[in-house]
Amino acid sequence: MLVLPDQIRNLIESFSNLPGVGQKTATRFALSLINRPVHELDAFAFNLKNLLSVEKCQECGLFADEPICRICASEHRKESGLICVVEQFTDAMAIEGSNRFSGLFHVLGGVLNPLMGVGPSEIAFDSLMERISKNNVCEIILALNPSVEGDATSAFIKDEILKRFHDKVSVERIGLGMPVGGALEFLDPMTISKALENRRRF
Amino acid sequence: MLVLPDQIRNLIESFSNLPGVGQKTATRFALSLINRPVHELDAFAFNLKNLLSVEKCQECGLFADEPICRICASEHRKESGLICVVEQFTDAMAIEGSNRFSGLFHVLGGVLNPLMGVGPSEIAFDSLMERISKNNVCEIILALNPSVEGDATSAFIKDEILKRFHDKVSVERIGLGMPVGGALEFLDPMTISKALENRRRF
Repeated sequence: MLVLPDQIRNLIESFSNLPGVGQKTATRFALSLINRPVHELDAFAFNLKNLLSVEKCQECGLFADEPICRICASEHRKESGLICVVEQFTDAMAIEGSNRFSGLFHVLGGVLNPLMGVGPSEIAFDSLMERISKNNVCEIILALNPSVEGDATSAFIKDEILKRFHDKVSVERIGLGMPVGGALEFLDPMTISKALENRRRF
Repeated sequence: MLVLPDQIRNLIESFSNLPGVGQKTATRFALSLINRPVHELDAFAFNLKNLLSVEKCQECGLFADEPICRICASEHRKESGLICVVEQFTDAMAIEGSNRFSGLFHVLGGVLNPLMGVGPSEIAFDSLMERISKNNVCEIILALNPSVEGDATSAFIKDEILKRFHDKVSVERIGLGMPVGGALEFLDPMTISKALENRRRF
């Protein structure tokens, strides 16, 4: 029985740790790299190791080239008194892309998931509380994805803020409803029921 | 507008060169590696570079730890006078897995594709001709995938062998027909017509 050489099997192992990649896809990836030029493999390996040099803003947790990112350093944004709490960098990217938000961000880096051992100390929860108490924050917008974990994390953060800061800080959650361009017939029942709840006078 | 740091964008670029991986999947792969432990990224990078140390049998082109692979070194297999021509290593693996072939292999490393600039000198064609002329080969089994390029490559190799070795070498192609466990209703018309052509007395 023919078997693949160790070098290729090790690489397949590495690829199969990526999200959504099984043994077959990993094998395809590894074999596709076999005849690539040396400099391309070197660049790939360098880019992987270079990930370790990515730095995050000490305030909000967004990727940044400086210790404090441009958003956290902006007086205009600080004055808004608004913090939008997101799970990860790409969520903040999406919100910035809409050009409708001019407050600060706070990246949690995950959502609560007791089964996977993710509690409040595994996400950037304490630093959020600290930012609220030290700065002049009047409003928190929770923009976590609507999932079981996202909902539980939102509820937990809301309760903690109300407990610690009472009425000084208002907590809001990003609106749930029909996506623009969506088709009613293909929407799931949960989204439709949220869209009906969130109807507004027209 | 928020943009991803250069380090992450470079890695996305590397991932998006993999087959079937677009910008979105590459981004997902890159971001999933952000919080991985250092040793895991190091191992991944090492495994990539280590691909360069994979060696091939000088005779047949299969991956091998020795200059001549175990199959090419086997007297029993050499005596068969049979060479099975495949496109790549994994094809030979599949044939070995069937336990029904006891001849030698020859890995072309590709199929003819004039539009992509792949001619006979880009694949292991000359070395195949050399093996036939130097060794006691009586039969060539073409086991290339049934595609436009595979068919053209098979036809080209057959013509060349007949031209150079006349009746001394018989050229055969692996059988086309219904796969075992397949369902007629889902088969494409080409496969059905090949299966009808290749019918045998029962």
